[in-house]
Amino acid sequence: MRPSGRAPDQMRDIEMIPGFSAHAEGSCLVKFGGTHVLVTASVEERLPPWLRGQGKGWVTAEYGMLPRATHTRGSREAAKGKQSGRTQEIQRLIGRSLRAVTDLVALGERQITLDCDVIQADGGTRTASISGAWVALRLALDGIHAKTPFATDPLALQVAAISCGVYQGNPVLDLDYIEDSGADTDANFVLTGDGGMVELQATAEGAPYDEETLLRMLRLARIGCGEVFKAQLKAVGRG
Amino acid sequence: MRPSGRAPDQMRDIEMIPGFSAHAEGSCLVKFGGTHVLVTASVEERLPPWLRGQGKGWVTAEYGMLPRATHTRGSREAAKGKQSGRTQEIQRLIGRSLRAVTDLVALGERQITLDCDVIQADGGTRTASISGAWVALRLALDGIHAKTPFATDPLALQVAAISCGVYQGNPVLDLDYIEDSGADTDANFVLTGDGGMVELQATAEGAPYDEETLLRMLRLARIGCGEVFKAQLKAVGRG
Amino acid sequence: MRPSGRAPDQMRDIEMIPGFSAHAEGSCLVKFGGTHVLVTASVEERLPPWLRGQGKGWVTAEYGMLPRATHTRGSREAAKGKQSGRTQEIQRLIGRSLRAVTDLVALGERQITLDCDVIQADGGTRTASISGAWVALRLALDGIHAKTPFATDPLALQVAAISCGVYQGNPVLDLDYIEDSGADTDANFVLTGDGGMVELQATAEGAPYDEETLLRMLRLARIGCGEVFKAQLKAVGRG
Amino acid sequence: MRPSGRAPDQMRDIEMIPGFSAHAEGSCLVKFGGTHVLVTASVEERLPPWLRGQGKGWVTAEYGMLPRATHTRGSREAAKGKQSGRTQEIQRLIGRSLRAVTDLVALGERQITLDCDVIQADGGTRTASISGAWVALRLALDGIHAKTPFATDPLALQVAAISCGVYQGNPVLDLDYIEDSGADTDANFVLTGDGGMVELQATAEGAPYDEETLLRMLRLARIGCGEVFKAQLKAVGRG
Amino acid sequence: MRPSGRAPDQMRDIEMIPGFSAHAEGSCLVKFGGTHVLVTASVEERLPPWLRGQGKGWVTAEYGMLPRATHTRGSREAAKGKQSGRTQEIQRLIGRSLRAVTDLVALGERQITLDCDVIQADGGTRTASISGAWVALRLALDGIHAKTPFATDPLALQVAAISCGVYQGNPVLDLDYIEDSGADTDANFVLTGDGGMVELQATAEGAPYDEETLLRMLRLARIGCGEVFKAQLKAVGRG
Amino acid sequence: MRPSGRAPDQMRDIEMIPGFSAHAEGSCLVKFGGTHVLVTASVEERLPPWLRGQGKGWVTAEYGMLPRATHTRGSREAAKGKQSGRTQEIQRLIGRSLRAVTDLVALGERQITLDCDVIQADGGTRTASISGAWVALRLALDGIHAKTPFATDPLALQVAAISCGVYQGNPVLDLDYIEDSGADTDANFVLTGDGGMVELQATAEGAPYDEETLLRMLRLARIGCGEVFKAQLKAVGRG
Repeated sequence: MRPSGRAPDQMRDIEMIPGFSAHAEGSCLVKFGGTHVLVTASVEERLPPWLRGQGKGWVTAEYGMLPRATHTRGSREAAKGKQSGRTQEIQRLIGRSLRAVTDLVALGERQITLDCDVIQADGGTRTASISGAWVALRLALDGIHAKTPFATDPLALQVAAISCGVYQGNPVLDLDYIEDSGADTDANFVLTGDGGMVELQATAEGAPYDEETLLRMLRLARIGCGEVFKAQLKAVGRG
Repeated sequence: MRPSGRAPDQMRDIEMIPGFSAHAEGSCLVKFGGTHVLVTASVEERLPPWLRGQGKGWVTAEYGMLPRATHTRGSREAAKGKQSGRTQEIQRLIGRSLRAVTDLVALGERQITLDCDVIQADGGTRTASISGAWVALRLALDGIHAKTPFATDPLALQVAAISCGVYQGNPVLDLDYIEDSGADTDANFVLTGDGGMVELQATAEGAPYDEETLLRMLRLARIGCGEVFKAQLKAVGRG
Repeated sequence: MRPSGRAPDQMRDIEMIPGFSAHAEGSCLVKFGGTHVLVTASVEERLPPWLRGQGKGWVTAEYGMLPRATHTRGSREAAKGKQSGRTQEIQRLIGRSLRAVTDLVALGERQITLDCDVIQADGGTRTASISGAWVALRLALDGIHAKTPFATDPLALQVAAISCGVYQGNPVLDLDYIEDSGADTDANFVLTGDGGMVELQATAEGAPYDEETLLRMLRLARIGCGEVFKAQLKAVGRG
Repeated sequence: MRPSGRAPDQMRDIEMIPGFSAHAEGSCLVKFGGTHVLVTASVEERLPPWLRGQGKGWVTAEYGMLPRATHTRGSREAAKGKQSGRTQEIQRLIGRSLRAVTDLVALGERQITLDCDVIQADGGTRTASISGAWVALRLALDGIHAKTPFATDPLALQVAAISCGVYQGNPVLDLDYIEDSGADTDANFVLTGDGGMVELQATAEGAPYDEETLLRMLRLARIGCGEVFKAQLKAVGRG
Repeated sequence: MRPSGRAPDQMRDIEMIPGFSAHAEGSCLVKFGGTHVLVTASVEERLPPWLRGQGKGWVTAEYGMLPRATHTRGSREAAKGKQSGRTQEIQRLIGRSLRAVTDLVALGERQITLDCDVIQADGGTRTASISGAWVALRLALDGIHAKTPFATDPLALQVAAISCGVYQGNPVLDLDYIEDSGADTDANFVLTGDGGMVELQATAEGAPYDEETLLRMLRLARIGCGEVFKAQLKAVGRG
Repeated sequence: MRPSGRAPDQMRDIEMIPGFSAHAEGSCLVKFGGTHVLVTASVEERLPPWLRGQGKGWVTAEYGMLPRATHTRGSREAAKGKQSGRTQEIQRLIGRSLRAVTDLVALGERQITLDCDVIQADGGTRTASISGAWVALRLALDGIHAKTPFATDPLALQVAAISCGVYQGNPVLDLDYIEDSGADTDANFVLTGDGGMVELQATAEGAPYDEETLLRMLRLARIGCGEVFKAQLKAVGRG
């Protein structure tokens, strides 16, 4: 029995509010239950020096969490003077995931930065970030396209992410904070719209897991990402 | 004529959404027009070492701005590894302003941290922060009081802040970003509920100003803070 | 009664020693009683990249305090690895104040850095810094002018600063450390030679203040800055 | 055809030199072909403050790479003043992997730090580090046991890691640098001696991968870890 | 011929102004020609944690240079966020030199920090710092002794330092900036009042030097330190 | 009697393994007894901006110590976020020493970085580093020369370093860790192949030393460097 009363393959309610930010070229407030992440896509028409002249663009991500997004206040990374290892690990994962479905040559010599800031956390902030980042990126590209059309759409595929885990012996989908804290295994799946796998990270927090469990979690992830893909399309007006 | 079409003594719409955060002991999403700040009050029942044993508590503030809260993306302070001088100046001002109306002895040996994070910026983020911080602090204290009543209310007075400036030769109230960028003088007023002044900072961005202008701005600030005081009371359910 | 026995509108002795530094293009050791600040003006004939090509120059300031300038030793900011919020706030104020009276276009494409280092502190270090910085800047400009005359003097006006406060209920001028530590209100005024106001910062350290008090402090500030203006002219040989 | 001429399921030569360090309580120079990592296990009989009094110990890891371990010199992290996101990600992975097979209660209130320093890099530094860290940890525990026997062996299981990838369309085992640079998919597997999975990270560098590929890589990983387990036992004198 | 016209064994004018600082327990403004260093000795009656309980005290030094102490402005270390290698090297040398003549057990469980801040630089700032630090330390100890007499004087010996070098082929004493910039060899000697050597650092800036040159520089150093010893005694009122 | 049983003028066994690194243009694993340092020479065909266009190259050094190179684990500088004063002092010394025998004009516009990483420490790590760095530099230059011959050899002279000290009243050569910890005087000598002195640093750790002792240590240093010179020639195949 899950603390929230959900079925093992039941997601939390997903909400994706496009255009949440007045200033960003693309943005999305994504909610997976009590986890709320604001993602903005910022377009810069010039690349940093080390990326110039290669005939392609770049997509990068930064991640942050408001100090009191969590149950107890965490220290502010800007005040501490550095980003934690966890923060860097997450923002690297977000960037890789979105680049996996982006045609950087088609994007042209511009950089898009995806800022994922957790307003409220209840488990699954990295998977919500990736899922919302696709919406923000899509909207930003639509905006560029409206002014100067792309010959090829740089973002032909969707990408979404979801967490799975083994809670009290059972594989479950989309862990909230309580489940996450007590899970034996914690896994994050990043899948593309056509069923490909982009990233899989599965960690035994307690006992090691086996192949069977891994495959059952993958099955749950496919269900979950299916729902996210629908919510994404709806958010960008293509549902 | 103001870019927004407002009268010189006209505030932007104020909205204060109490309890915006699921986790914080007190919180408020405050909107002054297009400026949106999320303030959370986090209560810790123990003080940092250097404040212990003095029979009183402490109220402190931290301030941050999401990288794309602004028209063009600013760099993330956590990634740069330090808070800017501007950030530190603002969070010191917020902390001083709230302490000015807090009875630290009545508060007891606990610390309350007010995190003010700008979700969207359109001028006046520091004054919105101070104004919203009072609501978050009030709610946090109400929560403490409900469990272990204070003998004396540590927050007997309200405090609010508003910006004024001289735009195209005229003193105006509550500058938005466009006005702020072009103002000759930029002033921030922090006033208490009974009309006292807690902080006044008036800076000539262009030509120096005179005493007459200072007093006219102060008069506008009294009007503006009056509106904020009402919004605060309504937000904490005492309106 | 003031601890020093001074009248409410009585400044401490002001001393301004021009040319104190053998190397700087302009310099001044400024003493407001026991507060001694060495200000140097360093001229660089090229601007940092982000200021180039705009047909104007820049004036900036840095501030520091020797670790044992104060009653008890403070930690060395270079050893701690960062400047405090207070330091940054002060150096930003000094820079703004001097730029308020500088014609950056007339200055031409060069940068002048005003280093204000507190050798000994007894209250009012930021106002002494601003007041001495004008002398150092004036001397540096005179030096440039002697070689390659300016068509227009980039520094047509004087600027000076002084602190006022409410000590034991009475507004007083030019607080020393003892008064500053016990003052209810602490205010810094930056005025131009023709009576304009460039910056005003008034903070209630204890009880809030009212408009009447603010105006009485402003009156004292005008008296104080008048004396500083005279000392400045004398120091630059135009007295 | 692999650049090295190896068969798809062929490891590079593994060498594990126990006791390489004269000072550490346990140590191992581990070589996976041209990848050489020195791992030392340092035992401290007291815990850092935040871990004390919980009746258990801690195992943690740090990772570094000599600046010229790689084909072109990388900058020294100590000189840059921070560890890269990659470094932090790797050292977190190493620590988690070793803790997954350590009984922290049986370990008692002591901390063991596993320093993994890459002397020479040719792909697979993180998996070599984990594999060698088990040897260093085992030796350190044997040393403690010889003096004050453990009631329960804190390290009942082995743990080893290996990389797999898809190179030119074929799943291959134990990628060297050339393969790693050109691989479509890059995966790291951390397995226990009894066949459990502790950590799996599979990243699509080029095209997404599918379930079939994942399972084929897992099969290769089981072959590879089998060889590592043997080398570990031999290195600790239990082969 | 030396640029200053001095004889090879001729020092610059030495001036040592004791009690320069109003706040420090001991202080000295030391001038070796155009090199001016303010040294303060700050006494703390408690030791940092890692020095406690060993029945002895500690003497440490910090060194800094005002940004415009030099011919061209250097960047401010506090603003850069770290002390340069040169700064750290110098302050370690100063600390070691003073500890070499201090009986730390006789000093008792207190720490004395010697802050050496270069107000103006013209070569030899580290040797002037050491020489002046002895005066500041002596005065601070005299102050302690006047209140609570030491059983044994913790500073029975004098210590002084001087630079020598090979300028245009000739060993010379007490190099100024011009000589220092062009010297083939640059050496710093730290000697005790009874003729012992505490520290010797001799660096070939151009061609290597030989034993003969080393000994001639040592002879010059003895002459120079002799003059410094006299100036020190005079400054502390024992001349 | 020395703890190791060595005669006062007896070095530890020296071993210099050239070409230890597979990637570096020049490298050497140097062992002075239990002190093992890996030195790599990395050639970059372009200079950093501030060195360009002067018709000459640059040689620089960086130094590090693996955390468990020592008897007890030291903290990792990359994790602490800065290099210690000791580290910076040593790497500055290594760089100066190698530049003292390098003809930077003959080297041409390229930079060579000498990374000296201590794998295991038992006293004398800085002198082993300098001695091994010459081998790595020589090999790197030989490699360049083989492709594009130098008109003039940029490294006509050898340079080597050795430590001496006064242990239990007797001058001894090449101190190991035990001697170093208990030595009254600790001195490092850097000598050239033709007998010149490049650097001499002699520090009294206990009682001051005298001229006689200094000269006796210098004599020992000449003996020791003689052995190092031979080992260097053998390592570079010119023995």
